[in-house]
Order: sequence, then C-alpha cells, then structure tokens
Amino acid sequence: MASHPLAPAWLAVPDDANELAPAIWSSNVRRNDSGVLTIAGVTATEIAATFGTPVYVLDEADVRSRAAHVLAAFSREFSAIGAKAKVYYAGKAFLSTEVARWVTEAGLNIDICSPGELAVALAAGVDASRLGHHGNNKSLAEIDRSVAAGMGAIVIDSLQEIPRVAEAATRHGRRQAVRLRVNSGVHAHTHDFLATAHEDQKFGLPLEHAADAVATIRSYDSLEFLGLHCHIGSQIFGADGFAESAARLLTVHRELLADGPVPELNLGGGFGIAYTTADDPDSLDDLASAIAGIVAAECTRLDIPVPNVAFEPGRAIIGPAAFTLYEVGTTKDVELNTDEGTASRLYVSVDGGMSDNARPALYGADYSVRIASRTSDAEPALIRLAGKHCESGDIVVSDDYLPGDVAPGDLVAVPATGAYCWSLASNYNYLGRPPVVAVRDGVARVIVRGETEADLLARDAGLDAR
Amino acid sequence: MASHPLAPAWLAVPDDANELAPAIWSSNVRRNDSGVLTIAGVTATEIAATFGTPVYVLDEADVRSRAAHVLAAFSREFSAIGAKAKVYYAGKAFLSTEVARWVTEAGLNIDICSPGELAVALAAGVDASRLGHHGNNKSLAEIDRSVAAGMGAIVIDSLQEIPRVAEAATRHGRRQAVRLRVNSGVHAHTHDFLATAHEDQKFGLPLEHAADAVATIRSYDSLEFLGLHCHIGSQIFGADGFAESAARLLTVHRELLADGPVPELNLGGGFGIAYTTADDPDSLDDLASAIAGIVAAECTRLDIPVPNVAFEPGRAIIGPAAFTLYEVGTTKDVELNTDEGTASRLYVSVDGGMSDNARPALYGADYSVRIASRTSDAEPALIRLAGKHCESGDIVVSDDYLPGDVAPGDLVAVPATGAYCWSLASNYNYLGRPPVVAVRDGVARVIVRGETEADLLARDAGLDAR
Ligand SMILES: Cc1ncc(COP(=O)(O)O)c(C=O)c1O
Ligand SMILES: Cc1ncc(COP(=O)(O)O)c(C=O)c1O
Repeated sequence: MASHPLAPAWLAVPDDANELAPAIWSSNVRRNDSGVLTIAGVTATEIAATFGTPVYVLDEADVRSRAAHVLAAFSREFSAIGAKAKVYYAGKAFLSTEVARWVTEAGLNIDICSPGELAVALAAGVDASRLGHHGNNKSLAEIDRSVAAGMGAIVIDSLQEIPRVAEAATRHGRRQAVRLRVNSGVHAHTHDFLATAHEDQKFGLPLEHAADAVATIRSYDSLEFLGLHCHIGSQIFGADGFAESAARLLTVHRELLADGPVPELNLGGGFGIAYTTADDPDSLDDLASAIAGIVAAECTRLDIPVPNVAFEPGRAIIGPAAFTLYEVGTTKDVELNTDEGTASRLYVSVDGGMSDNARPALYGADYSVRIASRTSDAEPALIRLAGKHCESGDIVVSDDYLPGDVAPGDLVAVPATGAYCWSLASNYNYLGRPPVVAVRDGVARVIVRGETEADLLARDAGLDAR
Repeated sequence: MASHPLAPAWLAVPDDANELAPAIWSSNVRRNDSGVLTIAGVTATEIAATFGTPVYVLDEADVRSRAAHVLAAFSREFSAIGAKAKVYYAGKAFLSTEVARWVTEAGLNIDICSPGELAVALAAGVDASRLGHHGNNKSLAEIDRSVAAGMGAIVIDSLQEIPRVAEAATRHGRRQAVRLRVNSGVHAHTHDFLATAHEDQKFGLPLEHAADAVATIRSYDSLEFLGLHCHIGSQIFGADGFAESAARLLTVHRELLADGPVPELNLGGGFGIAYTTADDPDSLDDLASAIAGIVAAECTRLDIPVPNVAFEPGRAIIGPAAFTLYEVGTTKDVELNTDEGTASRLYVSVDGGMSDNARPALYGADYSVRIASRTSDAEPALIRLAGKHCESGDIVVSDDYLPGDVAPGDLVAVPATGAYCWSLASNYNYLGRPPVVAVRDGVARVIVRGETEADLLARDAGLDAR
C-alpha cells in the first residue's frame, strides 16, 4: 500500500495495524488468543472494566528491570575503568511512593526537585541520604528542610545559593554534600547536539565560573564539594553529546583537583526512548559503554584518575513501562485537498487528551496507538487520535494507522506514556486526572487514585459561600 | 537608550520600567504613594503576606464590568439591526462558583464543556437553562446528565452525536435545544485569518454537510434546532475573520431556513486581549459594531431576517482581570555572544512557573512583568522571568525590562493571567497549585484554595500500603 498523502514521511503503512512493536511497549504486553491486549497477564478489557478509562497502566516488573538494568550497565562499564557509577532516578518523570520503592529496591537513588517530591520519597521510606536535590530556585525553607532531612546531595545552581545552603548546614550542625551545576555549552536532543560557548538558560553556571564558585563552596566548613553536575538535554539517542559535554567538564574537573578532592562527576539524565517505530535510540548498554570509553580516554589524556560518576535518567526507566488506555467515543472522517487530490484523515476521539498527556501540545511529541480490545483485519486507515478537550490542539497521537473499522466503544492504548504524562497532567476543562494502575503477575492495583468530581470541586471556596 | 541586542523587535526599552500600562492591567490596579502595586485598594505586599506566593489575584469588579460590557456592546449593536445578542462566558478560561455567579449576575450565560464544569455551574446556583454544552466527544453519561439537568443548548459536534442526544432527550421526556457545530473553513489569530475549503480539525462538520445533519436533527421530535455554531480561533484582534466566517455561515443558514426555523447563529468566542504593550486588539465595542455591520449586510444581500446571535468569549472577560504575584528567589546574569558583541540577559527566577502558567511553554505566549513591592530608578535591564521547575523551557516571561536592581525578595506581578492559567495548571514537580484570591473594595478573599502538600499526596495509594 502506498504511503498516505497526509501522513508524515517517517510513518510507514504497517503490514499489520494490530502489531505491538516490542520497542515501544513494555516487556509484559502482548495480545492473548482473542486478540485482546494484556499486560502481565491482565487484559485491557478487565482493566477498563475495573478502573474505568482513561487509565495509566504501569508494568511494575518492567520498571524494576529497567531500573536494575541501567544501574548494572553503568556499573559494569565504569568498574571496568576503575570507577563506580551511581544512578539517580529522576522523580520528575513520574513519582509516587510505590515507584520510589521499586527504584530504590533496584539499587537506585532518587533525584527530587521540590519539597513535594521530597515528601513522596520520605513517605516511601527512602533514606534522605539516597536523594539528590535539584532546582534553580530552591526557597530558603526548602533548603532548610532538605538539609534537616539529611539530603544526600544538594545541586547548587547559582552563586546566591552557596551561602544559603552553607548557613542551613551550619544551623543544623551538618556538613552538607553539594554538587555544582554548570553549563557545558552542549545541548543534545535525539540524534543531534549543539555545542556553544555559552548557554542562554536558567540553570547552572558557565564552565568558566566554576572554579570561583567551587572555591567559595570550599571556603565553607559546612559544605562538602562532591563535583560538577551537568544535564545536557532530553530524549537523547546517542552518546556524542555526552562525550562532548564530559570532555569539557573533565577539563574543569582537572583544574578543581588542584585545590581539593573532586570525588564525582554527574552527567545528568536524558537517555531517549522510542515513542514510535521510527525512533531508534541507542541501547543503554551501548550508551554506557560509549560514555565510559570517552571518560576513560579523557582522563588518560588529562592524566587524572577516573572519577566516580552519577547519572539521572527518568524517562528511560519509567517511560516505556506504561501505556494509557482510552475508550473511543466518536470518529469523524475529514476530507482534505492535497497535491495528489483529496485524501481523508480519520479523527478518532477518546475520553482523555491533553490533560493526561500534555507532551504532544507542549513539545510536538509523537506517540503511537493500537486498538487494545480486539484485533481487526480491516485495511489500515490514517488516523489522528484526538482528546475530548475543548481545544483544537488537543491531540494525543498526531499520526498513526489503525484498522479502518475502529469505532466508538473500542479501547485503544497509547504506549510509552510512563514519563512526563501523569507528572504534567492538568485538570483542564475540569477533567479529573486518571488513576495509575500497576500490574504485576496477573494482579492490577491502583497506586495513585484517580480524581473524582468531588476532588475537583474540593478547593472551591465559593461552595460554602452561598 | 538603544534597543538591546537580545530583545525581540517588538519590545521597546521603556522610559519607566515601573509603569503599569493600563491596557495590560485590570482596571483597579495602581501604585500607591510608596510605589507598591495595589489592586482595589489592597497592596501586593499584604496579599503576599496573607496568602503567600505564588498567588493568582483577581479583580472582581473588573470581571463583572467586562462581562457587563461585552453583553452591552453586542446587545446594542444587534438591537440596532433588529436582533438580540446572547453572551456565553466560556468557562474553560477559568471557572469557579464565584466567577460563575459574577458573570451570570452580569446577565451572561455560561459555556461548559465537561461534567466537571457543569457541576461547578450548578453548584454556583446557575440555572441549567443558561448553560451551553460543548465537546467533540461527550460521553453518553455526560449527555444524559446534561439533558436531565435541563441544559439550555447542546452543541452537537458529530453525526454520531445526533441520535445520542435525541435518545437521552426522549428518555427524559424533554425537547432538547441543540446547535450544530460547523467549520466555516476560517481560522483566525491576532491580525490574520486563513480561509480554506476544509479544516483539518477534530471539531464540527464541514459546512457542506450541515444541511444533511440539520435534516437529521429535525427528524427527531425530541430535538429543537437552534442554529449553527462556529468558533474560528482564539486571541483574535480584528473583525475580518468573523466577517468571513459569518458570511459563509449565513449562506448555509439561509438554506436551512427553507425547511424550518433557525432562530440563532452562534459565532463563538476568541476575542483577543493585550498581554504586552505590543498587543493592540480592537476594542469589544469596535468588534461588536463591525460584526453586526457584516451580519446586517449579509442578511440584506441574502434577503433573510437578521438572526439572533450568540458569542462565547472567555479570555476577553477574565484574562485581563488577574495578575500572578510571585516572589523572586534567585537572579543570574547570562553573558551571550551576539552579532554586536557580548550582551547579557538577567534571569530572574520566581517561586512558580509552568505549573501555574503553561501558556508560554504550550503556545509560546508572551507576557510582561513589573516589580510589585516597590519602584526603582535603576536602569532597565533585559530580563527573562524563569520559573522554579526542573525544565529549561520553564519560562514565564521570555522578554521584558525590569529595573536592573531587581533582587531576591522582590515581589513581581505578571498581568493578564486570568484566562487559561489556573485552568491549565498542573502539579509538575509536585508543586501545589496556587490559590485564587479575589479582591474587591479593599477586601481580599480566597475563592479557590491553594494546594497543600497533603493535597498532593492524598491520592497516593502507596501511602497506606507499607
Ligand atoms: C537535571 C535533570 N536531571 C535529570 C532529568 C531527567 O531527564 P530524563 O527523564 O530525560 O532522563 C532532567 C529532566 O528534565 C533534569 O532536568
Ligand atoms: C467552542 C469555544 N468557544 C469559546 C471559546 C473561548 O475562547 P476565548 O477564551 O478565546 O474567547 C473556546 C476556546 O477554546 C472554544 O473552543
């Protein structure tokens, strides 16, 4: 079948629009003999019947194994060059007490960037020494609370923050471990990276100011300097950006060694995942190996010992582990004029949208979709999966193919919605946020409850005012 | 002073970076003798001390007068040509029970697009007959509830919806008034509009399918056809797009008159407001007069009576009536290379961000900012107001000038945040959504409570699971 005149170039017509490409679905998703999508042995139809739609469905074993895998990969590669690797799970991708336990049980630390995220991690029973605290504008109260809790590392983001953290540490009689966030000038995304002298961004300090800032940090007895930190971007498919950034950082790291210890180097997160079959991120094993290779080579060139390293992946751990399950409510064929005559696009509207997945509207992010409640032999049709919000930009999947008989009542599943979907969710149009259901070994259970109408009205002070 | 090499072309260096340009601030905002920003007689410093920051601050009298004004303007212009005008307040812009009361007390109806918005309007005591119900994918339960409540008008969005609404009406023994949403092919924004034959969007039916759809509607005794509905876009500064759309709609409206009554024509919302001093939307009086002129001329040309009209503004009523008050936490000078040598941008970080105002990240929307807690004679500096989220795109005001001595502890106010800010707010990074405070005649009171940490953790089912 020829490609559709309205389809983007990257989207091929599938041989089978029912197929669940392993690269974009969590490892325990398949179809059962009736063609119904199952996750860890539970059918999508059962999940919809029990928990309603929309619902985020998280593959617990998949999260645990991705967490363990990333730690194992970096530990293996860095131990081969005489260094240790720490992995922080970036809680901003998705955080709940359950997930905090899963990733820490897999040996990871957690990256938090607000008092709310701190509260979740502590409520999960995670020891504060396993946490790192990020933020370009941590309030004094936040810093105080972090220090008091025994925060493992605070990532200092500005000169103004140095005395603030130092004073809090003194007040609490602690020596607070800190990193210094710098801009390496490298900004990476998918296959590309941009390397400039200076970055026009709110985070961190330019590399050439690092030495002065570290001297200030070292001037405080209440602070212990752990090393530099740099995060170069998100949804990064290859190692080149990390290589360039690591090389720039290590040059400064070496300078800093002249005046004291620099035990670690934190290279941030940003490892990419596949949202559609057109995405081809390098595997974590390949990334770990390439990054370790660069770090080893640079350290040899600079004649310095290989520092211990830390990474902060969020998306790569939780992103592929979930799908969002929706029910189709309406369909609409839209005829459009193209250079090749008229062509039609099937709008398929579901019961959620930009409130449960803001990424398409925010970043132009692509997703894909499959019918979950059945398979079909109908010819694939080019569809656009639209949400139910009163906004024309409310699109969940801009372009994919589904069997052309997709109809109201079908359940559809959008894979790779584990990261930055629930965490960015809103109540736009007074839609309640969906529950998060974790499935493991044939058992599905709610780990974050969905919002009810009562929840949505609960903070309206005018309710009692009549 | 010459313009700054990093500033966008539209942004002039202000003579006075303390000035509150009336076009972008609500009518009861000024500075008092100490230079502190006040709203309806209450100082920003008092508001921050009482309610904390960030906080949305809403000028109650301003909302009421804008609501009354838009109704008066359209009523005056259409009564001059022998027709009536209804105005629906588009609840999606911002809805709470208080605001629902203010706008209905001003004589407006309310546009809702979800059961949650319906619940708020009903809780406010608004009679369902004054509501209109929108949505491309209303669930059966939603339709049922709307019909049962006595919904004033349901805006039918697809062929599939016609029997759904008809059956619900029959079940409840009601004759349900409905509109039919169509695409006129006109899409408008700021000064431009695009007119095409067909629209690639999820809402409504193409104009040429309207006659068939209306025939189907009329075939049901349980449905009463009110007329066509079309919404052409948002943040529209002039009448041209409305004129083109109205002309196209009236041609079909005339055809429909052949087979029965078509009492109304709903031209949607989308009237623009000024977010920065560079924005120059036509006044509502001018828009009303221009639109009425076009409708009158077209009806004369088509030899049909002028129908009653309806409009659905959201932003124009609530948008300019609020500002968001933040506290500055950190500042950071970033040096950048430009064609004209190095230049610097001052990053000013506040205690909110994309969670309380997603529009800059979602739409690239521009805002402006002023120091609220004081005035200053310092030279204006080009600033970027950044949020505190762990994301580089977390920018509230991309470009504006503030007195160069802006510093941690200053309160800053971002005007025109009444529409699509609270309603699109998220809990990204586990930040609680700020309260909404209404101020009137020297009294400030919470109309929507802010979220506490307990609120943020309340739905985490893992809390009890340990
Ligand atoms: C400092 C920092 N670390 C880690 C991450 C996690 O990134 P990802 O989920 O892409 O791995 C982010 C994401 O914004 C970040 O800002
Ligand atoms: C159908 C409809 N009516 C009214 C509005 C309100 O638009 P505005 O707030 O720009 O006036 C919208 C906004 O999306 C809409 O979709």
